[in-house]
This record gives sequence, C-alpha cells and structure tokens, in this order.
Amino acid sequence: MSSAGSTQEAPYEFIYVPGIPGRGEYIRLAFIEAGVPYTDTAFTESCMDTLAAYTSDENAGDASNPPPFASPILKHGELVISQTCNILMYLGPRLGLAAASSTPSRENDAYKINALAMTAHDGFGTEVHNCHHPIATDFYYEEQRDESVRASKNWVKNRLPKYLGYFEKVLAGEASGEGPWLYGGVLTWADLVLFQSIHGLEYMFRKAMKAAKESGRYTRVFQLYEAVKARPRIAEYMASDRRLKYANGLYRYYEELDVVAE
Amino acid sequence: MSSAGSTQEAPYEFIYVPGIPGRGEYIRLAFIEAGVPYTDTAFTESCMDTLAAYTSDENAGDASNPPPFASPILKHGELVISQTCNILMYLGPRLGLAAASSTPSRENDAYKINALAMTAHDGFGTEVHNCHHPIATDFYYEEQRDESVRASKNWVKNRLPKYLGYFEKVLAGEASGEGPWLYGGVLTWADLVLFQSIHGLEYMFRKAMKAAKESGRYTRVFQLYEAVKARPRIAEYMASDRRLKYANGLYRYYEELDVVAE
Repeated sequence: MSSAGSTQEAPYEFIYVPGIPGRGEYIRLAFIEAGVPYTDTAFTESCMDTLAAYTSDENAGDASNPPPFASPILKHGELVISQTCNILMYLGPRLGLAAASSTPSRENDAYKINALAMTAHDGFGTEVHNCHHPIATDFYYEEQRDESVRASKNWVKNRLPKYLGYFEKVLAGEASGEGPWLYGGVLTWADLVLFQSIHGLEYMFRKAMKAAKESGRYTRVFQLYEAVKARPRIAEYMASDRRLKYANGLYRYYEELDVVAE
Repeated sequence: MSSAGSTQEAPYEFIYVPGIPGRGEYIRLAFIEAGVPYTDTAFTESCMDTLAAYTSDENAGDASNPPPFASPILKHGELVISQTCNILMYLGPRLGLAAASSTPSRENDAYKINALAMTAHDGFGTEVHNCHHPIATDFYYEEQRDESVRASKNWVKNRLPKYLGYFEKVLAGEASGEGPWLYGGVLTWADLVLFQSIHGLEYMFRKAMKAAKESGRYTRVFQLYEAVKARPRIAEYMASDRRLKYANGLYRYYEELDVVAE
C-alpha cells in the first residue's frame, strides 16, 4: 500500500474515449491551465484496450478502488476515480485551480466551486446531450431526430437563458470577487467548465448563442469566456492539434437543431 | 465572519420543495441514519418563500456564497451549498457516513464514495426522470407520453440491467469490504443513495424491478437494499408520516411506463 506522499508525487493518468473533446475536455483543460503534465490514453494506440480494462464487466476494481462505471477516469498513484465533477474536485486544489487562501472561512470553498461546476456540467452538458438524444443514448440520432428538434427548441427557449442568466447573476454577485471569475476572485475549475460549455454551445447552437451574446444580457459570462480563452496555456492548447474537433460526442452540429427561441 | 468552529457547531438547515421525496430524500436519509437533527423547510408553512429567497433571480448570494441554482440546498452556519451529491459529500464525513479509518490510504475515500453516489444519482435519478420527461421538464407528462413510453422501454431493457449489474459488481469487488455495503465495509452515503434509488425504482418500474429481483442476478444489490431498510432509524422513519409519498416528482407511477424488457 502506498503512502499518501507517494500518491501526491505520482504521475496523473487520464483515461478517456478517443476522438472527441466530450466530457473529458473539462478535465484536460484543468491540466492545461495548471501546466501540470499528465498522460492521456485517448492519444495512445492501446486506448480502447485500456478503457475496456477499466470499464468491462470483468473489472471489479482492486483492494482500495471500486471499478469505475464509465470514463472519464483518473488514476493518480493507487487512486482510481471516475465522474467528471468528482475528478475535478479532486484535482482542483492539487492543481492550484481553487481560491488561494487557506483561512478557516475558505476551507469549504471546494464545495462552493463544485456546486458551480456541477451546475454548468449538468445544465450545459447533460441537458445538451439530451437535446440530440432525448429518447435514449442507445438509439442513433436519426432514430430520434423529430424529438431532438422539439427538445432543442424548448431547451434554447427556456433552459439556455435560465442557465446563462444564473451564471451572469453569480458573476455579478459579491462572492465572485474581483475580476472575471465565478468564485473568490481567482480562476477555478468551475470557470474552465463554464468556458468549455460556452465553447461547445457556440458550436452546437450557433444561432441561439449569437443572439444571446448580442442581447447584452450575459456580458459577464462572455467576458469570462474570453478571459479563459486568453490564458496563455489555454490559448496555445486551443490552437494546437491536441485540441480535438467536435464530432459525434457531447456537442454536435445538426442544422435542424440550430434553432432560435421563438 | 464566523470561525470554522462555529460553522461546525451550527444547526443543519435543509431547504427543499414541499410534497415529494424527490432528490431531497437522498439527503434526508443521511440525517436520519446518522441520527443528527436538522430543520427541513419542506415541512414549514413558509417553505415556498424560503425557497424563493434562495433561488429567485433577485438572490445573488452573499459575500462568501454564490447563489444556488436550485434546491436541494444546505445551510450550515455561514455555508450555503447546493447540488445533491455535493451536499452529501460535505455531510457524509461530518455525519459519520464514511469509512471510519483515517489512515493515509483512506484520505481519498470521499472521492471514491462520491463517484458511487453520483453514478447511482445520475443513472437511477436523472436518467429515470428523463423516462417520464424525455423532451423537456418544461412540458407536462401528457405532452410527451408516447416519447416517455419509448424512452422507458429502452431504459428498462438496456440501462436498468447495466446499472444494476454495475452495482452488483461493485458489491462483489474487494474494495467493498465485509458486509452488505458498497465501500470499505461500512455504511456510507452512497449506500443510502442506492437504497433510495431502488425504492423509487420499485415504485415506478414495479414489473421490471420484480423481474430483476427474481432473476437472481443482483442479489447483493437487493441485500444492500434490505440492510439499509432494516437500520433502526431508517425503518422507523420509513414507517412514519415524515416520509413523504411519491407524487409528481422524480419517481412516478404511470401504468403505460411500467414496462418489462422485451
């Protein structure tokens, strides 16, 4: 059994499906922004075998780790954990992506940041996936196209402004502190989740996002987006071929789903 | 600004919508099992006003707390947090619902337990809600009944066995330890989430759950369910009128959705 110390110093191994940004991208951006090295199985030839070794019916975990249900997965020393926001909550403080102060009143910062990250992830991730797979993830998009149009029209009309308005309110609130960030005046992993969400939404719902931007109602949200985009390590990464193109993953472009609120 | 000490000793205030178990029940069960007192706004006359004060457009949070997006919400001293699994991760160790040991190798237990809780919550909660509201939460069930039948048939056939099989595998795995629990040989908040999920599923998909039980494939899952149900404080609570009946919340009964795998 390793000591906590050796886990702290162990390399970060990130396990995710190949070929899409997907939910894995929220985690990649944390490593990128922090400038902390990690291995990424998605870019290895044995990717599918590695994934299967973790998520197949045959893997029952080990003495200290339950098996993961699905990727993304993080291995750090002897620790193996899954669930995107859970991984981010583990990594955030370790990568320096949380409020810097360690005064007593800050000790619960992680739970506040995690709530913001989960809200962005569930609202702008899970709900958006449902826009192109409303009936079932097991069916092809083409088998649920009409339902997707109906789901997308409602989402763009009712849910998109609800979430954008919420984050605008958070950014205007006192707890957000100075600067463009969601919490405590420093860049946290919640900002990265919101950035990647907006980026994906601008790909999938380009008309609605253009209208949202031009409405002037969410200036702080788009300022945060630009502020993350301008971070040197993020900018360099986004321009590189390490940043994968959107494909048949979480954020997709279908002309018939690119609707505006009626 | 309060010290960490005064937050530790502060009463737990739980804020949730009235009249349904819903997602709030996962959190209520944690307090019940721990035998720790808490206030529950759902049972107060001013419930809707309290909720609105937290989640209205006008609430921008305070100096140290961002506003919550939605309930459930936990207030503990000066701390205000939202998101069901986030609240449980905060409460779990404080309520004694986590692995008891504090050796270094156990320091990351919370992330392992949280991954299990999130998997049960998302799979048996969010996905199940989608079975009766596949197109949009903003539409009535009656406006998406045909789509709900299609979604439920697929969910019962493909997703239900996938999740039940996953938790059966976790329970058979070494990291689950002795006894009927998911992790570390002790009852954790993940066990409570799984228990409440199974309880809700048996209400909503009674035919499919009966078949699942009788198949003998998930004996450990149902043993965990029975073990939680037999806990003295849980048993007393479940038999009391404090335990709300299912209604138009997360778990619902519609005869046409009570399908079996074909």
